[in-house]
Amino acid sequence: MARTTFRLRCDAGIDAFAAQECREGLERLYGSDLWREDAEWTVSLSRKPDLPPEGYRLSGAPGSISVEAADDRGLLYGVYAFLRRAALGEEFSALKETAVPAAARRMLDHWDNVDGSIERGYAGASLFFRDGRLSYDPERIKDYARLLASVGVNHISLNNVNVRGGALRLITDDMLPEVAALAGLLRPFGLRLILSVHFDSPMLLGGLSTADPCDTKVSAWWQETAERVYRYIPDLSGFLVKADSEFQNGPASFGRTQADGANTIARALSPYGGMVFWRCFVYLCTQDWRDTVTDRPMAAYDHFHSLDGRFDDNVMLQIKNGPMDFQPREPLSPLFGAMPRTRQALEVQLTQEYTGQQIDLYALPVQWQEIFSSPITGERVLRDLIGQEVGGVSGVANVGDEENWTGHTLAQCNLYAFGRMAWDPSLTARQIVEEWVKLTFGRDPRLTEPLIAMMLSSRNTYEKYTAPLGIGWMVNISHHYGPNVEGYEYSPWGTYHRADWQAIGIDRTRGGTGYAAQYHPDVERLYSDLTTCPEELLLFFHRLPYTYPLQNGKTLLQHIYDTHFEGVEEVRGFVKTWESLRELLPESAYESVARKLALQLANAREWRDVVNTYFYRKTGKPDEHGRPIHK
Amino acid sequence: MARTTFRLRCDAGIDAFAAQECREGLERLYGSDLWREDAEWTVSLSRKPDLPPEGYRLSGAPGSISVEAADDRGLLYGVYAFLRRAALGEEFSALKETAVPAAARRMLDHWDNVDGSIERGYAGASLFFRDGRLSYDPERIKDYARLLASVGVNHISLNNVNVRGGALRLITDDMLPEVAALAGLLRPFGLRLILSVHFDSPMLLGGLSTADPCDTKVSAWWQETAERVYRYIPDLSGFLVKADSEFQNGPASFGRTQADGANTIARALSPYGGMVFWRCFVYLCTQDWRDTVTDRPMAAYDHFHSLDGRFDDNVMLQIKNGPMDFQPREPLSPLFGAMPRTRQALEVQLTQEYTGQQIDLYALPVQWQEIFSSPITGERVLRDLIGQEVGGVSGVANVGDEENWTGHTLAQCNLYAFGRMAWDPSLTARQIVEEWVKLTFGRDPRLTEPLIAMMLSSRNTYEKYTAPLGIGWMVNISHHYGPNVEGYEYSPWGTYHRADWQAIGIDRTRGGTGYAAQYHPDVERLYSDLTTCPEELLLFFHRLPYTYPLQNGKTLLQHIYDTHFEGVEEVRGFVKTWESLRELLPESAYESVARKLALQLANAREWRDVVNTYFYRKTGKPDEHGRPIHK
Repeated sequence: MARTTFRLRCDAGIDAFAAQECREGLERLYGSDLWREDAEWTVSLSRKPDLPPEGYRLSGAPGSISVEAADDRGLLYGVYAFLRRAALGEEFSALKETAVPAAARRMLDHWDNVDGSIERGYAGASLFFRDGRLSYDPERIKDYARLLASVGVNHISLNNVNVRGGALRLITDDMLPEVAALAGLLRPFGLRLILSVHFDSPMLLGGLSTADPCDTKVSAWWQETAERVYRYIPDLSGFLVKADSEFQNGPASFGRTQADGANTIARALSPYGGMVFWRCFVYLCTQDWRDTVTDRPMAAYDHFHSLDGRFDDNVMLQIKNGPMDFQPREPLSPLFGAMPRTRQALEVQLTQEYTGQQIDLYALPVQWQEIFSSPITGERVLRDLIGQEVGGVSGVANVGDEENWTGHTLAQCNLYAFGRMAWDPSLTARQIVEEWVKLTFGRDPRLTEPLIAMMLSSRNTYEKYTAPLGIGWMVNISHHYGPNVEGYEYSPWGTYHRADWQAIGIDRTRGGTGYAAQYHPDVERLYSDLTTCPEELLLFFHRLPYTYPLQNGKTLLQHIYDTHFEGVEEVRGFVKTWESLRELLPESAYESVARKLALQLANAREWRDVVNTYFYRKTGKPDEHGRPIHK
Repeated sequence: MARTTFRLRCDAGIDAFAAQECREGLERLYGSDLWREDAEWTVSLSRKPDLPPEGYRLSGAPGSISVEAADDRGLLYGVYAFLRRAALGEEFSALKETAVPAAARRMLDHWDNVDGSIERGYAGASLFFRDGRLSYDPERIKDYARLLASVGVNHISLNNVNVRGGALRLITDDMLPEVAALAGLLRPFGLRLILSVHFDSPMLLGGLSTADPCDTKVSAWWQETAERVYRYIPDLSGFLVKADSEFQNGPASFGRTQADGANTIARALSPYGGMVFWRCFVYLCTQDWRDTVTDRPMAAYDHFHSLDGRFDDNVMLQIKNGPMDFQPREPLSPLFGAMPRTRQALEVQLTQEYTGQQIDLYALPVQWQEIFSSPITGERVLRDLIGQEVGGVSGVANVGDEENWTGHTLAQCNLYAFGRMAWDPSLTARQIVEEWVKLTFGRDPRLTEPLIAMMLSSRNTYEKYTAPLGIGWMVNISHHYGPNVEGYEYSPWGTYHRADWQAIGIDRTRGGTGYAAQYHPDVERLYSDLTTCPEELLLFFHRLPYTYPLQNGKTLLQHIYDTHFEGVEEVRGFVKTWESLRELLPESAYESVARKLALQLANAREWRDVVNTYFYRKTGKPDEHGRPIHK
């Protein structure tokens, strides 16, 4: 095959960094000896002020490729898009794409602690911190920044939302110089920093006797702090705040509303263009399990929806996708669509806290596609709100300092997918997984087709062998890996299935806790009616007897048995598929994923046996097909 | 009341320390102004070589009290016995007691770590260690030594049987000078030190490539170590070893027997008169819950009994009272009586790991009385073996650096009782609790009678609101406080109840796992026959349906409901009793115990509701008396 050759033409005023990324990217793809004055292809980078911010236009013609954008960041995204298409083997002369991100803020949230540990991290230690200070390899940070920018991520939240110990001091003169240096490394890649701050900082750092957001000393303290922080990092995106949540203080501790709390900090950041990202993960985490009135999924809506319109314009409410907490299956949070006069961000979780901890294979774009397709009304789905009131998409990062970034090599796809989907929520899981597989392992269909199929089925498989029908939470306490059917049943965390000898689940219709009534009437009807409620969410919304017949005629109990037997067989299938691909894969990737799959198979077996035995012991009813269930 | 006056007469050769303890003890009881040449009472301390080691004789006559012993330690114990009787208000002239300890080794085992923490400690930090070194207040150590000696304890094992980190180095030149200094503080009180050592020390400290006990380099290493340790502490009692147990290595790791392991270390200690205390807590802690053949309580017997006669004379096998692990109710370990040619020590647990963690009131002497009365054959009970093959009684300490020693003031009684019962296992719980209450709070019967009754009932109450009928283990994992009925049900720890919709328990008769056959045939028959098996152990030995009728005609299920409702009411009774005693108690003791009782009541309620709900959800059968059970 003849060598592909290029020359690069940059208009005056073109960012040198984008040109350099283009040059280096092409060299990575085609080798360094590709530049010719009489090249086969001329790549032109140019400004087009009529394009929207961050947008780009790619167009190809015989012998020429054009990348146009209105701003530096758009040009960089255009260059990466061109490189991606080149790596995918697309025909240059047929290139024709105008792309604009759906969400202006595409944020990757790190839950990194300054001691180097990562809350819910499964890929090694922090890329950023060690022993209480910023500490990193600048080259690795640049690689990471390129990784994120290449899929359109434009914000990094640096530290854990649970702000503890030394992390409090990230906004002090002690640590800001280090933070500013890191911001400088990220800046060329279009990445802006967000810092997680503690709501009680005025007390914990400022020595004030209160953090009451309506106290003038407190607002003055936040103003001084903002002035200081922006002196070091003029383009800081803002502060992320977890308040009134899981034993962290917040405005409620001082008798104030969530809006009071968020606005006080927002007004301090406003002169500098900074935002407050205010998490809505507010619920009673000291519930009495005997209390059948309080219903945890109702909490965020109850705390926030009546405040619509009361938040300043530079406050963005950051709302987890579901009303519980990143379970494999939840309905969409009813806050989406319920606060049209409030800026919102969708928060999803890349790190696989409840979804296999980067041991089990779990392709998240499958779940995200469903989330973006979840109904807001009878006509609109979440995807329609992105770029409207939902101006941000944030994801809890799944990366650490392991060589393959994500612990499980195939979990890299989730990082890739997050950026791609935050940019364009209309992309399907199939498109994204296919892109990632081809970019990562090449385009041999003997490899790509089985691998794509395996990854696309992985979420469904995981769901089969874990908690059934949207009920969630049947996990071991604290660390959240592996089965424990009653692990959270008598706990204070508000997560109950109340399984007895005849039935399981919570009735969340108007006749029950009333949770379903938090949705638009169209959606409430959908979920409340047993005949229209999506079966995979059945036990989220309804309490049903084990004898309840599902659409395929099986009883609920037999469905539990069947899915758990099937789940393990499907993981066995993954193992076989992976083995069959051995010759087509780099050895290190093959070996590391094979090790993960062996652990996943053990985990799936444990889930199957514990869940089946649990329900057998409760009901006394054996499997209709006589498969072994341990007594 | 006229002042009681004394003069003290010491025979030539009498230990000055015993005389001083006598003098100071009397001054504490009667004030310092009590010495008169024409005193009411003459106390004579004298030697009587015909008395057995450590024994003493007290005798009173008008105007005179005589304390006689063959050795210094006996004299000290005689002095303390006299002081105890004085404090109890006994008539001096009627004193008449010859006492000899039943067990030669009465050992309090500390699970203290060198960082100052205590494994399963509920009374503050270590009395001995801080930040990796010995660190203590010598006056507090002397008080503690007096406390122990006054009830006859004569050995202290200093450090956690799980030997980790810096504790490895207690037997090196680095730390031995400090250990020797502590031994010097304890020595006058007749207390000898034991050190817990790691079986892998030859590798971990000595740099050898093996710890194989049959390797000559390994035995040489132990010999050098013994020589070194005894150079610093000539009266060290010996080494305590937890080997082949809960992820700690042992002889089995090298294909050797437990006897090989113990004897190698014992031969190194032998020239110095040292002993090896070798724990028998060996079991499979990575069991598959699906495995219904392996039965954890069988493990110690299976590992040890065939080695009877193979242990050197200076090896003492240290055997937990029950075959499981310090549950509130277990049968006696079948190893007792099964190894007549092997020296044994009984190990009980003072620290309330599974018995309320010094929050809940739990008078252990009640349980110990039962343990000493447990059958070995149809004719003999454990008590009959003490001083025979069972030459030692060891107890895991319940003390820490809290001001009241034991966290819960009333838990001091367990420390008192341990010494008293190890000395004389024929003492009843009633006698001991009465002594302790009177010595601690005085002899007003308005106080003593209700308090003694409350303490004596506390074990039964705790049992009522926790796991029923000897089944054990329905606790939260790891920390072991509070209810979790299925907490250990699918775990690798070998602790299963296998409750289903109709029955609960493991059949441990010959028809089941065969555990009962490890006992003498008389005892096997007793436990295997449903009509003779003590009801409180019913679910330890049998799997029974919830409909099984107990002796009082109640079903097993109704018994569970009843006892759990009763347990909470009894704790409410404790709270009321304690409140009624307020005026008769020192305020600080009143307040601190009142706080504990409030926590205990909350714990009892939680147990009641979780256990009752669990069985209701499993069976669908309500309480016959219509009391509320949460659905």
